[in-house]
Amino acid sequence: MDLKQIAKDTAKTLQSYLTYQATKTVLAQLSQTNPPLWHWLNNFCADKIQDGEVLIEKLFHEKPDLALRIMSVREHIAQEVAEFLPEMVCTGIAQANMQHRRQHLERITQFKLSNPQSKTENQTEIIQDEEL
Amino acid sequence: MDLKQIAKDTAKTLQSYLTYQATKTVLAQLSQTNPPLWHWLNNFCADKIQDGEVLIEKLFHEKPDLALRIMSVREHIAQEVAEFLPEMVCTGIAQANMQHRRQHLERITQFKLSNPQSKTENQTEIIQDEEL
Repeated sequence: MDLKQIAKDTAKTLQSYLTYQATKTVLAQLSQTNPPLWHWLNNFCADKIQDGEVLIEKLFHEKPDLALRIMSVREHIAQEVAEFLPEMVCTGIAQANMQHRRQHLERITQFKLSNPQSKTENQTEIIQDEEL
Repeated sequence: MDLKQIAKDTAKTLQSYLTYQATKTVLAQLSQTNPPLWHWLNNFCADKIQDGEVLIEKLFHEKPDLALRIMSVREHIAQEVAEFLPEMVCTGIAQANMQHRRQHLERITQFKLSNPQSKTENQTEIIQDEEL
């Protein structure tokens, strides 16, 4: 397992995701302040949202002001959010793992219990029938 | 801008991405140790890799051992990698922003310089023609 490469790939994915969040934020602002520009940017982003750097590079050729704005917003989001991510992700994974294990354990236990339980129910029904 | 919601969404995306990396790691191990199982897991994951929790939940119904293995690997990766991500992402975004700004500045400068430069070249050619 190449942890160094995984860290690099994860940071790159995260960078692209924060660019997507910054673009979403700018779009939300434009929808209030400048609907025609919102419409233009929304169409422009449609097929470029997978790679944040490509989006910004192409946007610089069309509307540099918007590219600069998305860049500023993503830098701000990263500075505000990044420090909380390690704790949130480690806790999230630990909790999700515990939940999956618990559900699995419940399924196994129910499966093993279901046969004896149903037998007991059947026996009770037979006894009740006989009593009636 | 709802930074709290962005942090939550980012942590969730990161969790799913680390599950993808864990699945890739387990697949790489299986390709060496158990090719038939590698083939089975590879096919199983094909349409479920977008959501890590759905993948693990469904895998628990088919092959619980593999689900537990992917869960252990993703927890390990998160513990080893997460603490470095804030620094890597903030530096990555700052560097990428600087590079985009530099390229934009170069393009503007070249564009502004190109006309006077071409005039000078033309003038030199005219002078040379006249001298000849």
